[in-house]
Amino acid sequence: MTQLVLLRHGESTWNQENRFTGWTDVDLTPKGQEEARQAGRLLHQGGYTFDMAYTSVLKRAIKTLDLCLDEMDQLWIPVVKSWKLNERHYGALQGLNKAETAHQYGEEQVHIWRRSYDIPPPALEPGDARFPGKDPRYANIAAALLPRYESLKDTVKRVVPYWETEIAPMVRAGKKIIIAAHGNSLRALVKFLDHIPDADIADLNIPTGIPLVYEMGEDLRPLRKYYLGDAAHIASATAAVAAQGKVK
Amino acid sequence: MTQLVLLRHGESTWNQENRFTGWTDVDLTPKGQEEARQAGRLLHQGGYTFDMAYTSVLKRAIKTLDLCLDEMDQLWIPVVKSWKLNERHYGALQGLNKAETAHQYGEEQVHIWRRSYDIPPPALEPGDARFPGKDPRYANIAAALLPRYESLKDTVKRVVPYWETEIAPMVRAGKKIIIAAHGNSLRALVKFLDHIPDADIADLNIPTGIPLVYEMGEDLRPLRKYYLGDAAHIASATAAVAAQGKVK
Repeated sequence: MTQLVLLRHGESTWNQENRFTGWTDVDLTPKGQEEARQAGRLLHQGGYTFDMAYTSVLKRAIKTLDLCLDEMDQLWIPVVKSWKLNERHYGALQGLNKAETAHQYGEEQVHIWRRSYDIPPPALEPGDARFPGKDPRYANIAAALLPRYESLKDTVKRVVPYWETEIAPMVRAGKKIIIAAHGNSLRALVKFLDHIPDADIADLNIPTGIPLVYEMGEDLRPLRKYYLGDAAHIASATAAVAAQGKVK
Repeated sequence: MTQLVLLRHGESTWNQENRFTGWTDVDLTPKGQEEARQAGRLLHQGGYTFDMAYTSVLKRAIKTLDLCLDEMDQLWIPVVKSWKLNERHYGALQGLNKAETAHQYGEEQVHIWRRSYDIPPPALEPGDARFPGKDPRYANIAAALLPRYESLKDTVKRVVPYWETEIAPMVRAGKKIIIAAHGNSLRALVKFLDHIPDADIADLNIPTGIPLVYEMGEDLRPLRKYYLGDAAHIASATAAVAAQGKVK
Protein backbone atom coordinates (compact mmCIF):
# COMPACT_ATOMS: atom_id res chain seq x y z
CA MET A 1 0.00 0.00 0.00
CA THR A 2 1.34 3.40 -0.96
CA GLN A 3 0.10 6.79 0.01
CA LEU A 4 -0.18 10.13 -1.71
CA VAL A 5 -1.41 13.45 -0.34
CA LEU A 6 -2.75 16.27 -2.51
CA LEU A 7 -3.09 19.78 -1.11
CA ARG A 8 -4.69 22.72 -2.85
CA HIS A 9 -3.15 26.06 -1.83
CA GLY A 10 -4.90 28.18 0.74
CA GLU A 11 -6.81 31.36 -0.08
CA SER A 12 -4.91 33.78 -2.32
CA THR A 13 -5.43 37.51 -2.70
CA TRP A 14 -7.24 36.84 -5.96
CA ASN A 15 -9.38 34.06 -4.48
CA GLN A 16 -10.42 36.71 -2.00
CA GLU A 17 -11.09 39.22 -4.79
CA ASN A 18 -12.84 36.43 -6.78
CA ARG A 19 -10.64 36.98 -9.83
CA PHE A 20 -9.47 34.48 -12.44
CA THR A 21 -5.85 33.84 -11.46
CA GLY A 22 -4.35 31.12 -13.64
CA TRP A 23 -0.61 31.64 -13.90
CA THR A 24 -0.65 35.06 -12.23
CA ASP A 25 1.73 34.74 -9.28
CA VAL A 26 -0.42 36.16 -6.50
CA ASP A 27 0.34 35.67 -2.81
CA LEU A 28 -1.57 33.91 -0.05
CA THR A 29 -3.82 35.96 2.22
CA PRO A 30 -3.31 35.65 6.01
CA LYS A 31 -6.30 33.27 5.94
CA GLY A 32 -4.58 31.24 3.23
CA GLN A 33 -1.43 31.04 5.35
CA GLU A 34 -3.49 29.80 8.28
CA GLU A 35 -5.22 27.22 6.07
CA ALA A 36 -1.80 25.91 5.04
CA ARG A 37 -0.62 25.71 8.66
CA GLN A 38 -3.85 23.97 9.65
CA ALA A 39 -3.28 21.40 6.89
CA GLY A 40 0.16 20.78 8.35
CA ARG A 41 -1.25 20.37 11.85
CA LEU A 42 -3.84 17.85 10.61
CA LEU A 43 -1.16 15.86 8.82
CA HIS A 44 1.14 15.99 11.83
CA GLN A 45 -1.64 14.91 14.21
CA GLY A 46 -2.50 12.09 11.82
CA GLY A 47 1.07 10.82 11.98
CA TYR A 48 1.79 11.52 8.31
CA THR A 49 5.37 12.05 7.15
CA PHE A 50 6.74 12.64 3.66
CA ASP A 51 9.89 11.68 1.83
CA MET A 52 9.57 14.39 -0.78
CA ALA A 53 7.24 17.03 -2.15
CA TYR A 54 6.22 18.46 -5.48
CA THR A 55 4.76 21.87 -6.18
CA SER A 56 4.33 24.42 -8.94
CA VAL A 57 6.45 27.50 -9.61
CA LEU A 58 3.71 29.76 -8.23
CA LYS A 59 4.22 31.20 -4.76
CA ARG A 60 0.74 30.46 -3.44
CA ALA A 61 1.42 26.73 -3.84
CA ILE A 62 5.08 26.93 -2.74
CA LYS A 63 4.18 28.86 0.42
CA THR A 64 1.29 26.55 1.20
CA LEU A 65 3.72 23.64 1.02
CA ASP A 66 6.36 25.40 3.12
CA LEU A 67 3.90 26.42 5.85
CA CYS A 68 2.41 22.92 5.91
CA LEU A 69 5.84 21.27 6.11
CA ASP A 70 6.94 23.72 8.81
CA GLU A 71 4.01 22.65 11.01
CA MET A 72 5.01 19.01 10.39
CA ASP A 73 8.69 19.77 11.17
CA GLN A 74 9.49 18.42 7.71
CA LEU A 75 10.92 21.49 5.99
CA TRP A 76 14.09 19.50 5.30
CA ILE A 77 12.56 17.12 2.73
CA PRO A 78 13.43 17.59 -0.96
CA VAL A 79 10.98 19.80 -2.82
CA VAL A 80 10.68 19.76 -6.62
CA LYS A 81 9.01 22.75 -8.29
CA SER A 82 7.66 22.43 -11.80
CA TRP A 83 5.54 24.61 -14.06
CA LYS A 84 3.83 21.38 -15.13
CA LEU A 85 1.92 21.59 -11.84
CA ASN A 86 0.87 25.21 -12.35
CA GLU A 87 -2.76 26.19 -12.28
CA ARG A 88 -4.69 25.98 -15.54
CA HIS A 89 -3.76 28.95 -17.73
CA TYR A 90 -6.83 31.12 -17.84
CA GLY A 91 -5.86 33.03 -20.99
CA ALA A 92 -7.39 36.48 -21.41
CA LEU A 93 -9.62 35.92 -18.37
CA GLN A 94 -6.63 36.24 -16.02
CA GLY A 95 -7.21 39.23 -13.79
CA LEU A 96 -10.97 39.53 -14.41
CA ASN A 97 -13.46 39.30 -11.55
CA LYS A 98 -15.48 36.09 -11.73
CA ALA A 99 -18.79 37.64 -10.71
CA GLU A 100 -18.36 40.64 -13.06
CA THR A 101 -17.46 38.27 -15.86
CA ALA A 102 -20.59 36.27 -15.07
CA HIS A 103 -22.61 39.48 -15.18
CA GLN A 104 -21.10 40.40 -18.57
CA TYR A 105 -21.08 37.00 -20.29
CA GLY A 106 -23.71 35.17 -18.26
CA GLU A 107 -23.33 32.62 -15.50
CA GLU A 108 -23.66 29.82 -18.00
CA GLN A 109 -20.71 31.00 -20.09
CA VAL A 110 -18.55 31.46 -16.99
CA HIS A 111 -19.54 28.01 -15.76
CA ILE A 112 -18.50 26.63 -19.15
CA TRP A 113 -15.13 28.42 -18.99
CA ARG A 114 -14.61 27.28 -15.42
CA ARG A 115 -15.90 23.76 -15.57
CA SER A 116 -16.19 22.45 -19.13
CA TYR A 117 -13.60 19.90 -19.96
CA ASP A 118 -12.45 20.98 -23.38
CA ILE A 119 -13.72 24.50 -24.05
CA PRO A 120 -10.83 26.91 -23.46
CA PRO A 121 -11.07 30.48 -22.22
CA PRO A 122 -10.25 33.31 -24.68
CA ALA A 123 -6.56 33.25 -25.63
CA LEU A 124 -4.03 35.90 -24.67
CA GLU A 125 -3.26 38.12 -27.65
CA PRO A 126 0.29 37.76 -29.01
CA GLY A 127 2.45 40.29 -27.21
CA ASP A 128 0.22 40.39 -24.13
CA ALA A 129 2.29 41.25 -21.06
CA ARG A 130 0.72 38.23 -19.35
CA PHE A 131 2.32 35.76 -21.79
CA PRO A 132 4.49 33.38 -19.71
CA GLY A 133 7.38 33.71 -22.15
CA LYS A 134 7.95 37.18 -20.73
CA ASP A 135 8.54 35.79 -17.23
CA PRO A 136 12.10 34.74 -16.29
CA ARG A 137 10.86 31.61 -14.52
CA TYR A 138 9.87 30.18 -17.92
CA ALA A 139 12.98 31.42 -19.74
CA ASN A 140 14.36 27.92 -20.28
CA ILE A 141 11.13 26.56 -21.74
CA ALA A 142 10.47 26.68 -25.48
CA ALA A 143 7.88 29.38 -26.18
CA ALA A 144 5.86 26.87 -28.23
CA LEU A 145 5.31 24.79 -25.08
CA LEU A 146 4.02 27.73 -23.07
CA PRO A 147 0.25 28.21 -23.12
CA ARG A 148 -1.70 31.34 -24.03
CA TYR A 149 -4.83 29.61 -22.65
CA GLU A 150 -5.81 26.16 -21.48
CA SER A 151 -8.94 24.08 -21.23
CA LEU A 152 -8.89 21.55 -18.42
CA LYS A 153 -8.12 18.99 -21.12
CA ASP A 154 -5.00 20.97 -22.01
CA THR A 155 -4.02 21.02 -18.33
CA VAL A 156 -4.51 17.25 -18.13
CA LYS A 157 -2.15 16.93 -21.09
CA ARG A 158 0.71 18.48 -19.14
CA VAL A 159 -0.10 17.32 -15.60
CA VAL A 160 -0.63 13.62 -16.35
CA PRO A 161 2.66 13.11 -18.28
CA TYR A 162 4.47 14.88 -15.43
CA TRP A 163 2.76 12.59 -12.95
CA GLU A 164 3.64 9.52 -14.98
CA THR A 165 7.28 10.34 -15.69
CA GLU A 166 8.33 12.17 -12.51
CA ILE A 167 6.04 11.49 -9.56
CA ALA A 168 4.48 8.05 -10.10
CA PRO A 169 7.88 6.29 -10.25
CA MET A 170 8.65 7.77 -6.82
CA VAL A 171 5.31 6.64 -5.40
CA ARG A 172 5.89 3.16 -6.86
CA ALA A 173 9.32 3.12 -5.21
CA GLY A 174 7.54 3.56 -1.87
CA LYS A 175 8.24 7.26 -1.38
CA LYS A 176 5.63 9.12 0.62
CA ILE A 177 4.76 12.17 -1.47
CA ILE A 178 2.80 15.38 -1.01
CA ILE A 179 1.79 17.49 -4.01
CA ALA A 180 0.87 21.09 -3.22
CA ALA A 181 -0.77 22.61 -6.24
CA HIS A 182 -3.87 24.29 -7.62
CA GLY A 183 -7.58 23.73 -8.08
CA ASN A 184 -7.34 22.72 -11.71
CA SER A 185 -3.96 21.03 -11.83
CA LEU A 186 -5.21 18.84 -8.96
CA ARG A 187 -8.57 18.26 -10.69
CA ALA A 188 -6.58 17.13 -13.74
CA LEU A 189 -4.66 14.65 -11.62
CA VAL A 190 -7.72 13.41 -9.70
CA LYS A 191 -9.57 12.92 -12.99
CA PHE A 192 -6.75 10.68 -14.17
CA LEU A 193 -6.29 8.78 -10.89
CA ASP A 194 -10.01 8.14 -10.38
CA HIS A 195 -10.88 7.61 -14.07
CA ILE A 196 -13.51 10.34 -13.95
CA PRO A 197 -15.28 10.68 -17.34
CA ASP A 198 -14.95 13.99 -19.21
CA ALA A 199 -18.65 14.66 -18.73
CA ASP A 200 -18.47 14.30 -14.94
CA ILE A 201 -15.42 16.38 -14.12
CA ALA A 202 -17.40 19.64 -13.97
CA ASP A 203 -18.86 18.54 -10.66
CA LEU A 204 -15.53 17.87 -8.97
CA ASN A 205 -14.59 20.69 -6.60
CA ILE A 206 -11.46 20.50 -4.45
CA PRO A 207 -11.49 22.68 -1.33
CA THR A 208 -8.48 24.83 -0.43
CA GLY A 209 -6.03 23.85 2.29
CA ILE A 210 -7.54 20.46 3.15
CA PRO A 211 -5.25 17.43 2.69
CA LEU A 212 -6.68 14.85 0.29
CA VAL A 213 -5.22 11.44 1.09
CA TYR A 214 -5.04 8.62 -1.46
CA GLU A 215 -4.25 5.10 -0.40
CA MET A 216 -3.13 3.14 -3.44
CA GLY A 217 -2.35 -0.40 -4.43
CA GLU A 218 0.99 -1.25 -5.95
CA ASP A 219 -0.30 -0.53 -9.43
CA LEU A 220 -1.23 2.95 -8.10
CA ARG A 221 -4.89 2.06 -8.27
CA PRO A 222 -6.71 4.17 -5.64
CA LEU A 223 -8.07 1.91 -2.89
CA ARG A 224 -9.43 4.65 -0.68
CA LYS A 225 -9.46 8.43 -0.63
CA TYR A 226 -10.50 10.91 2.02
CA TYR A 227 -10.03 14.48 3.17
CA LEU A 228 -8.46 15.06 6.57
CA GLY A 229 -10.32 17.11 9.12
CA ASP A 230 -13.79 18.05 10.24
CA ALA A 231 -16.53 16.82 7.86
CA ALA A 232 -18.74 19.94 8.12
CA HIS A 233 -15.76 22.19 7.40
CA ILE A 234 -14.80 20.11 4.36
CA ALA A 235 -18.36 20.28 3.00
CA SER A 236 -18.65 24.05 3.40
CA ALA A 237 -15.17 24.63 1.87
CA THR A 238 -16.13 22.50 -1.14
CA ALA A 239 -19.43 24.32 -1.59
CA ALA A 240 -17.64 27.67 -1.45
CA VAL A 241 -15.45 26.69 -4.40
CA ALA A 242 -18.48 25.60 -6.44
CA ALA A 243 -20.23 28.92 -5.80
CA GLN A 244 -17.45 31.20 -7.07
CA GLY A 245 -18.84 31.57 -10.58
CA LYS A 246 -22.21 32.92 -9.47
CA VAL A 247 -23.20 36.51 -10.26
CA LYS A 248 -23.56 37.21 -6.56
CA MET B 1 32.78 36.84 -14.51
CA THR B 2 30.58 34.71 -12.31
CA GLN B 3 28.88 35.58 -9.09
CA LEU B 4 28.14 33.76 -5.88
CA VAL B 5 26.24 34.96 -2.83
CA LEU B 6 26.66 33.47 0.64
CA LEU B 7 24.11 34.15 3.35
CA ARG B 8 24.39 33.14 7.00
CA HIS B 9 21.01 32.49 8.61
CA GLY B 10 19.44 35.17 10.75
CA GLU B 11 19.26 35.03 14.53
CA SER B 12 17.98 31.71 15.90
CA THR B 13 16.40 31.04 19.26
CA TRP B 14 19.69 29.55 20.43
CA ASN B 15 21.76 32.45 19.06
CA GLN B 16 19.53 34.56 21.24
CA GLU B 17 20.06 32.25 24.23
CA ASN B 18 23.79 32.14 23.37
CA ARG B 19 23.84 28.34 23.24
CA PHE B 20 25.98 26.02 21.12
CA THR B 21 23.60 24.87 18.39
CA GLY B 22 25.43 22.76 15.82
CA TRP B 23 23.00 20.33 14.23
CA THR B 24 20.14 21.09 16.65
CA ASP B 25 17.23 22.18 14.46
CA VAL B 26 16.20 25.39 16.22
CA ASP B 27 13.99 28.01 14.63
CA LEU B 28 14.60 31.62 13.67
CA THR B 29 13.56 34.36 16.08
CA PRO B 30 11.32 37.17 14.76
CA LYS B 31 14.54 39.23 14.53
CA GLY B 32 16.13 36.43 12.50
CA GLN B 33 13.15 36.40 10.14
CA GLU B 34 13.48 40.14 9.67
CA GLU B 35 17.21 39.80 9.02
CA ALA B 36 16.44 37.28 6.29
CA ARG B 37 13.83 39.56 4.71
CA GLN B 38 16.23 42.50 4.88
CA ALA B 39 18.87 40.42 3.09
CA GLY B 40 16.31 39.75 0.36
CA ARG B 41 15.46 43.43 0.09
CA LEU B 42 19.15 44.36 -0.24
CA LEU B 43 19.65 41.76 -2.96
CA HIS B 44 16.50 42.86 -4.76
CA GLN B 45 17.48 46.53 -4.59
CA GLY B 46 20.93 45.58 -5.89
CA GLY B 47 19.36 43.92 -8.92
CA TYR B 48 20.57 40.45 -8.00
CA THR B 49 18.74 37.39 -9.30
CA PHE B 50 19.50 33.70 -8.85
CA ASP B 51 19.15 30.61 -10.98
CA MET B 52 19.24 28.23 -8.07
CA ALA B 53 19.93 27.97 -4.36
CA TYR B 54 21.60 25.60 -1.92
CA THR B 55 20.95 25.27 1.76
CA SER B 56 21.31 22.84 4.65
CA VAL B 57 18.64 20.54 6.08
CA LEU B 58 18.27 22.80 9.13
CA LYS B 59 15.22 25.04 9.27
CA ARG B 60 17.03 28.22 10.34
CA ALA B 61 18.94 28.17 7.03
CA ILE B 62 15.99 26.95 4.93
CA LYS B 63 13.69 29.64 6.31
CA THR B 64 16.34 32.32 5.89
CA LEU B 65 16.59 31.32 2.24
CA ASP B 66 12.82 31.21 1.75
CA LEU B 67 12.22 34.61 3.36
CA CYS B 68 15.07 36.13 1.36
CA LEU B 69 13.81 34.65 -1.92
CA ASP B 70 10.27 35.76 -1.13
CA GLU B 71 11.43 39.38 -0.83
CA MET B 72 13.21 38.96 -4.18
CA ASP B 73 10.12 37.36 -5.77
CA GLN B 74 12.32 34.37 -6.60
CA LEU B 75 10.66 31.63 -4.53
CA TRP B 76 10.24 29.64 -7.74
CA ILE B 77 13.93 28.85 -8.27
CA PRO B 78 15.18 25.31 -7.60
CA VAL B 79 16.47 24.80 -4.06
CA VAL B 80 18.77 21.94 -3.13
CA LYS B 81 19.02 21.00 0.55
CA SER B 82 21.99 18.99 1.79
CA TRP B 83 23.30 17.98 5.21
CA LYS B 84 26.75 18.67 3.77
CA LEU B 85 25.99 22.37 4.30
CA ASN B 86 24.86 21.91 7.91
CA GLU B 87 26.48 23.85 10.70
CA ARG B 88 29.59 22.35 12.29
CA HIS B 89 28.54 19.53 14.61
CA TYR B 90 29.27 20.79 18.11
CA GLY B 91 29.33 17.36 19.76
CA ALA B 92 28.53 17.27 23.45
CA LEU B 93 28.54 21.08 23.63
CA GLN B 94 25.23 21.23 21.72
CA GLY B 95 22.66 22.82 23.98
CA LEU B 96 25.13 24.39 26.44
CA ASN B 97 25.19 28.13 27.03
CA LYS B 98 28.36 29.70 25.61
CA ALA B 99 28.91 32.12 28.48
CA GLU B 100 28.25 29.45 31.14
CA THR B 101 30.60 27.11 29.32
CA ALA B 102 33.21 29.88 29.29
CA HIS B 103 32.69 30.35 33.02
CA GLN B 104 33.12 26.62 33.65
CA TYR B 105 35.99 25.82 31.28
CA GLY B 106 37.50 29.28 30.83
CA GLU B 107 37.19 31.72 27.96
CA GLU B 108 40.36 30.40 26.42
CA GLN B 109 39.03 26.84 26.19
CA VAL B 110 35.75 28.03 24.71
CA HIS B 111 37.62 30.19 22.22
CA ILE B 112 39.65 27.12 21.24
CA TRP B 113 36.51 25.03 20.78
CA ARG B 114 34.84 27.81 18.82
CA ARG B 115 37.70 29.04 16.73
CA SER B 116 40.59 26.58 16.61
CA TYR B 117 40.92 24.92 13.26
CA ASP B 118 41.50 21.32 14.21
CA ILE B 119 40.66 20.86 17.90
CA PRO B 120 37.20 19.27 18.10
CA PRO B 121 34.64 19.76 20.86
CA PRO B 122 33.91 16.82 23.20
CA ALA B 123 32.20 13.98 21.29
CA LEU B 124 28.64 12.85 21.82
CA GLU B 125 28.58 9.62 23.81
CA PRO B 126 27.37 6.59 21.84
CA GLY B 127 23.62 6.35 22.29
CA ASP B 128 23.20 10.08 22.95
CA ALA B 129 19.73 11.22 21.85
CA ARG B 130 21.45 14.02 19.94
CA PHE B 131 23.23 11.60 17.57
CA PRO B 132 22.12 12.48 14.00
CA GLY B 133 21.50 8.82 13.20
CA LYS B 134 18.39 9.00 15.39
CA ASP B 135 16.89 11.75 13.19
CA PRO B 136 14.78 10.68 10.16
CA ARG B 137 16.34 13.36 7.97
CA TYR B 138 19.63 11.44 8.07
CA ALA B 139 18.05 7.99 7.75
CA ASN B 140 19.49 7.40 4.27
CA ILE B 141 23.04 8.29 5.28
CA ALA B 142 25.44 5.63 6.54
CA ALA B 143 25.90 6.05 10.29
CA ALA B 144 29.66 5.99 9.81
CA LEU B 145 29.44 9.20 7.78
CA LEU B 146 27.45 11.03 10.45
CA PRO B 147 29.52 13.04 12.93
CA ARG B 148 29.42 12.85 16.73
CA TYR B 149 31.56 16.04 16.78
CA GLU B 150 33.46 18.16 14.30
CA SER B 151 36.42 20.51 14.31
CA LEU B 152 36.25 23.19 11.65
CA LYS B 153 38.73 21.06 9.74
CA ASP B 154 36.19 18.21 9.78
CA THR B 155 33.53 20.61 8.51
CA VAL B 156 35.84 21.72 5.70
CA LYS B 157 36.25 18.05 4.73
CA ARG B 158 32.52 17.71 4.00
CA VAL B 159 31.71 21.24 2.77
CA VAL B 160 34.53 21.59 0.24
CA PRO B 161 33.89 18.28 -1.59
CA TYR B 162 30.20 19.22 -1.77
CA TRP B 163 31.17 22.61 -3.19
CA GLU B 164 33.50 21.02 -5.72
CA THR B 165 31.19 18.26 -6.91
CA GLU B 166 27.76 19.89 -6.69
CA ILE B 167 27.92 23.68 -6.59
CA ALA B 168 31.11 24.74 -8.38
CA PRO B 169 30.10 23.02 -11.66
CA MET B 170 26.89 25.08 -11.62
CA VAL B 171 28.80 28.32 -10.97
CA ARG B 172 31.22 27.43 -13.78
CA ALA B 173 28.22 26.85 -16.07
CA GLY B 174 27.21 30.45 -15.43
CA LYS B 175 24.42 29.76 -12.94
CA LYS B 176 23.85 32.52 -10.42
CA ILE B 177 23.84 30.79 -7.04
CA ILE B 178 22.95 31.69 -3.46
CA ILE B 179 24.04 29.48 -0.58
CA ALA B 180 22.11 29.98 2.66
CA ALA B 181 23.93 28.20 5.44
CA HIS B 182 25.64 28.55 8.80
CA GLY B 183 28.49 30.40 10.53
CA ASN B 184 30.91 27.51 10.33
CA SER B 185 29.88 25.80 7.11
CA LEU B 186 30.30 29.20 5.43
CA ARG B 187 33.63 29.82 7.20
CA ALA B 188 34.75 26.44 5.83
CA LEU B 189 33.80 27.50 2.32
CA VAL B 190 35.29 31.00 2.60
CA LYS B 191 38.54 29.49 3.94
CA PHE B 192 38.74 27.36 0.82
CA LEU B 193 37.72 30.06 -1.67
CA ASP B 194 40.07 32.69 -0.22
CA HIS B 195 42.95 30.32 0.61
CA ILE B 196 42.94 31.41 4.25
CA PRO B 197 45.71 29.63 6.21
CA ASP B 198 44.67 27.35 9.09
CA ALA B 199 46.27 29.71 11.59
CA ASP B 200 44.27 32.73 10.42
CA ILE B 201 40.77 31.27 10.21
CA ALA B 202 40.04 31.93 13.90
CA ASP B 203 39.72 35.63 13.13
CA LEU B 204 37.14 35.22 10.39
CA ASN B 205 33.63 36.09 11.62
CA ILE B 206 30.66 36.08 9.29
CA PRO B 207 27.72 38.23 10.40
CA THR B 208 24.17 36.85 10.28
CA GLY B 209 21.72 37.84 7.57
CA ILE B 210 24.08 39.98 5.47
CA PRO B 211 24.64 38.84 1.88
CA LEU B 212 28.31 38.19 1.09
CA VAL B 213 28.91 38.62 -2.64
CA TYR B 214 31.80 36.97 -4.47
CA GLU B 215 32.71 38.01 -7.97
CA MET B 216 34.82 35.28 -9.53
CA GLY B 217 36.91 34.68 -12.61
CA GLU B 218 36.17 31.71 -14.82
CA ASP B 219 38.51 29.53 -12.77
CA LEU B 220 36.36 30.50 -9.73
CA ARG B 221 39.21 32.60 -8.37
CA PRO B 222 37.65 35.37 -6.24
CA LEU B 223 38.23 38.74 -7.89
CA ARG B 224 36.29 40.80 -5.40
CA LYS B 225 34.13 40.18 -2.35
CA TYR B 226 31.91 42.45 -0.31
CA TYR B 227 28.97 42.48 2.05
CA LEU B 228 25.80 44.22 0.93
CA GLY B 229 24.35 46.96 3.07
CA ASP B 230 25.32 49.65 5.52
CA ALA B 231 29.00 49.52 6.54
CA ALA B 232 28.44 50.41 10.22
CA HIS B 233 25.75 47.73 10.53
CA ILE B 234 28.03 45.13 8.97
CA ALA B 235 30.87 46.03 11.37
CA SER B 236 28.68 45.82 14.47
CA ALA B 237 27.09 42.53 13.35
CA THR B 238 30.54 41.04 12.78
CA ALA B 239 31.79 42.22 16.18
CA ALA B 240 28.71 40.71 17.85
CA VAL B 241 29.57 37.27 16.47
CA ALA B 242 33.16 37.54 17.68
CA ALA B 243 32.00 38.45 21.22
CA GLN B 244 29.70 35.45 21.76
CA GLY B 245 32.31 33.32 23.57
CA LYS B 246 32.96 35.88 26.31
CA VAL B 247 31.99 35.16 29.92
CA LYS B 248 29.70 38.18 29.89
